[in-house]
Amino acid sequence: MNSLEICFSPELIHLHDLRGKIVVVVDIFRATSTMVTALANGVKSIKPVEDLETCRALSNTGYIIAGERNGQTEDGFILGNSPLSYLDRSYEGKRIAMTTTNGTVAIERSKEGSHEVLIGAFLNLEATATYIRKKNKPVLIFCAGWKGKFNLEDSLYAGALTSLLQFPYDCDGTLAMETLYNQVKSDLVGFLKKASHAKRLQNYNIEEDIDFCLTQNKYDMVAILVKDEIISKKIPANV
Amino acid sequence: MNSLEICFSPELIHLHDLRGKIVVVVDIFRATSTMVTALANGVKSIKPVEDLETCRALSNTGYIIAGERNGQTEDGFILGNSPLSYLDRSYEGKRIAMTTTNGTVAIERSKEGSHEVLIGAFLNLEATATYIRKKNKPVLIFCAGWKGKFNLEDSLYAGALTSLLQFPYDCDGTLAMETLYNQVKSDLVGFLKKASHAKRLQNYNIEEDIDFCLTQNKYDMVAILVKDEIISKKIPANV
Repeated sequence: MNSLEICFSPELIHLHDLRGKIVVVVDIFRATSTMVTALANGVKSIKPVEDLETCRALSNTGYIIAGERNGQTEDGFILGNSPLSYLDRSYEGKRIAMTTTNGTVAIERSKEGSHEVLIGAFLNLEATATYIRKKNKPVLIFCAGWKGKFNLEDSLYAGALTSLLQFPYDCDGTLAMETLYNQVKSDLVGFLKKASHAKRLQNYNIEEDIDFCLTQNKYDMVAILVKDEIISKKIPANV
Repeated sequence: MNSLEICFSPELIHLHDLRGKIVVVVDIFRATSTMVTALANGVKSIKPVEDLETCRALSNTGYIIAGERNGQTEDGFILGNSPLSYLDRSYEGKRIAMTTTNGTVAIERSKEGSHEVLIGAFLNLEATATYIRKKNKPVLIFCAGWKGKFNLEDSLYAGALTSLLQFPYDCDGTLAMETLYNQVKSDLVGFLKKASHAKRLQNYNIEEDIDFCLTQNKYDMVAILVKDEIISKKIPANV
């Protein structure tokens, strides 16, 4: 049975029953946008890791390590959290281990009993919707938020996916975000630049990252968590 | 310094610093609407109580006891959670002890270090805004939610108060709810009747309660928590 619900924060995920559901984890600025971009540009797999030390240790076992906290690359890490780092395909065929402020925590929490975990981004919005439509499963969109709080970019992605799927729901957060998304979608980038996290990121001079993360349907693939690593599956358009 | 933020759930309140702030607690269906109505109709004071047993015990110390869980009056309680019970002024001059599913928990949590706790409802929206405008304090609107989750009626009240106050904010929840409120305000009742909690309440045949709770600016008073009891203060209109 199709159904849909949204969880706005890792601090609220214990209120949701994940069993049997497809969980779509989203952290638009920038963890899940970066993961999708890396996989779409040839990266073999991404291992999400909750803490910096575990991630750092993986550099000795064949992983390229990516580590970010509060929007900045951590000392000793090869990569930070910018999707642009992957566009020249210099990490093609590589396995990445990645830890980020909000996104990797949410991915860890999304495993408990769920049917499947997907990694969502505007960059592969339509492909993710196409993949989900073929299954007959309830969906939970799990927003990584910002340090436990509601954030607008993740919630509006949830509204966008809701709007595409048109699954039935009995969830106030879903009604709020579908309505808001439909109101602001004609100038989504302009609206989201007013959001607090986007403003924080603008302070780091990564405006280019923000614009990239808000690009819709650049990649026709879905990112799926399989045995603790995220891999890519191609989704042909219009099929 | 004026500022404004919204907390969507008691499960998220630990992420907010309450110190020095005016906290406006809101549980539209129906705890805070009922409190405002009771005070506006002559009730002397309301003691919010977290648990049923403590509340029940207060009936021996001069309180009229009101107890609700999951939308229904608990056994042994004189009153449940309907604002309509107070309209004939039969509790004029009385002290009420009240416990509800979500609202009284939120009130308890709002005390920690805050400058002042107000009890908000659409019924006294403008009066509450007038009272707040006279102070020069940061404001936190604290939504009681539904069993820890985001709910639409409390969040849209927060959007309405934000829209009236026009205080500066750096809070994504506030931007989302101000925008959504301004979109749906022309048919707020119609929109909110699609919300999950309103649908739940409709099953209890309390449609009349819902319409009453969504009435705006019926009362020109503000409800203030003073020493563990909520009292009323008259706010002259247009002053």
